[in-house]
Amino acid sequence: MTSESAFVDALRGLAVGAEARGLMDDAAVLEVGGRRLVVTKDVIVEGVHYRSDDPPGDVAWKLVAVNLSDLAAKAARPVAGLLGYVLGEEGWDRGFIAGLSICLAELGLPLIGGDTVSVPAGAPRVLSLTAIGEALCAVPSRSGAAPGDILWVSGTVGDAGAGLAMLAGELPPNEALIRRYRAPQPRLEAGIALGHLVSAMMDVSDGLLIDAARIAEASGASLLVELDAIPLSRPFIAALGDKRGARLRAATSGDDYELLFTAPAEVSERVRQLAGDLRLPLTPIGRVASGAGLQVIDRQGEVPLPNELGYQHGRG
Amino acid sequence: MTSESAFVDALRGLAVGAEARGLMDDAAVLEVGGRRLVVTKDVIVEGVHYRSDDPPGDVAWKLVAVNLSDLAAKAARPVAGLLGYVLGEEGWDRGFIAGLSICLAELGLPLIGGDTVSVPAGAPRVLSLTAIGEALCAVPSRSGAAPGDILWVSGTVGDAGAGLAMLAGELPPNEALIRRYRAPQPRLEAGIALGHLVSAMMDVSDGLLIDAARIAEASGASLLVELDAIPLSRPFIAALGDKRGARLRAATSGDDYELLFTAPAEVSERVRQLAGDLRLPLTPIGRVASGAGLQVIDRQGEVPLPNELGYQHGRG
Repeated sequence: MTSESAFVDALRGLAVGAEARGLMDDAAVLEVGGRRLVVTKDVIVEGVHYRSDDPPGDVAWKLVAVNLSDLAAKAARPVAGLLGYVLGEEGWDRGFIAGLSICLAELGLPLIGGDTVSVPAGAPRVLSLTAIGEALCAVPSRSGAAPGDILWVSGTVGDAGAGLAMLAGELPPNEALIRRYRAPQPRLEAGIALGHLVSAMMDVSDGLLIDAARIAEASGASLLVELDAIPLSRPFIAALGDKRGARLRAATSGDDYELLFTAPAEVSERVRQLAGDLRLPLTPIGRVASGAGLQVIDRQGEVPLPNELGYQHGRG
Repeated sequence: MTSESAFVDALRGLAVGAEARGLMDDAAVLEVGGRRLVVTKDVIVEGVHYRSDDPPGDVAWKLVAVNLSDLAAKAARPVAGLLGYVLGEEGWDRGFIAGLSICLAELGLPLIGGDTVSVPAGAPRVLSLTAIGEALCAVPSRSGAAPGDILWVSGTVGDAGAGLAMLAGELPPNEALIRRYRAPQPRLEAGIALGHLVSAMMDVSDGLLIDAARIAEASGASLLVELDAIPLSRPFIAALGDKRGARLRAATSGDDYELLFTAPAEVSERVRQLAGDLRLPLTPIGRVASGAGLQVIDRQGEVPLPNELGYQHGRG
């Protein structure tokens, strides 16, 4: 295999059932006894998905949060989790357990099983979680966006990417942005509340533009993104400004775990009310049109697409 | 943490729901819409759970088989699997996919999702599978063995351990025994058929004696194992004989993935009939008594327990 995407393409040939959603969605959907289970499994690797010097409690948080973000994007409440753990240094393991205890309780995920293994000394940790959730409405996919729908995003974007740049010494540190990188908040309440309103929904894990392109591709439609409408946080603007370059950076950096969704224009008022109820910004940032692909504009006109729309990897 | 078992003990403090079975069983049980889902997740590590020179197709087989063996022990048919894959050398990845394709089809597991990641060069592969099954009867646990019950095992034991010793150059090679190590057969049909007859059931992954001790401990009973009754294969006997030392070796080596179960004496005839129907040996090898712990006897009398009853690790 030449790349992760080639491997995932090969896997797609094996995952032919409807419940697999062609391995194109954030999670699989299993119908059991008239109920809709949503199942997702994310793997995180030391030195790839988290930094070796990240505090172990934060790594536990991130492992749980990225999986629950997938459930949120499918409007599912958490039901059960299974941990795949690689043992390492004793103090680190203890810190992980302490952080895991906190995040399972705060995020409401019952741990029901898993496996713990040792690896040869010096090998990077490979940690995984399987999260099972239940959706009480039809499970949103990436493929339902229809021309005329509005494109929305929750919260603010770019914060986690800025936090990561700070940890890498590329920017002066800001604690709030570093927290967004290390301890993302899965938008569970919002995802569940939005489930019956949206036409398509996913979480922004790899970058807003690349994830928007995935919705466009899955839906057989085009997406117009208004760069100036993308919500930025005050700390982000303080660190990087809000000009075109900064906004493109925000829209192509990953790890925000906000919800990106489309909804018919006639439910926009209900989406706005939900934002108030949830005390979470829900911001219209574009719209769906016929055709294919992604178009980005700002007040100066059309914005040339950057070479990298986000973090490219193969997610099965 | 000083050991895997200490870590798993700490995890047990977090997994307090009934469905987790105290992380003491082969799998968790989730009741959904009146149906019983059995969920298990095993992680295998290059150089620990499989040899770096094992063919990639066999590694795929083993990854799927060890998880389905957990389902078999819980009398569950496979419903869905999620793969956690670490990319590596291109030809190996291709071989893995080819083997995965074969075993998913042969063992009847639909692949519905997962995650594929890259690791730093040279890092060992850490592969995982989450298998979801469904039990149509009450899900057997490890804890139901009652005094008077008969202890049974399926197939033959010791073969995989002998095969591993052959791969390590400690014994002259025998292809049948090496196959048992590399491509274990999960006893799905037997597990499902036995589900309503057994009082306790698990799969022999770490060694017959250590796994029998786990049933005894979970059930609050003692187990008497008749070493001479333990079923050995012809190739095993040809390689190692069938004296006490060879039998102890068979009873303490892991990776056989046979079913170890207890059942009331009054169903023994039905178990024997099942063995004929399944064309799989089901052999009575001991009985359950009151008290605690494990006692091993053979024709010469009581057999001193070896220091290692099997492969000790922490399984969550």
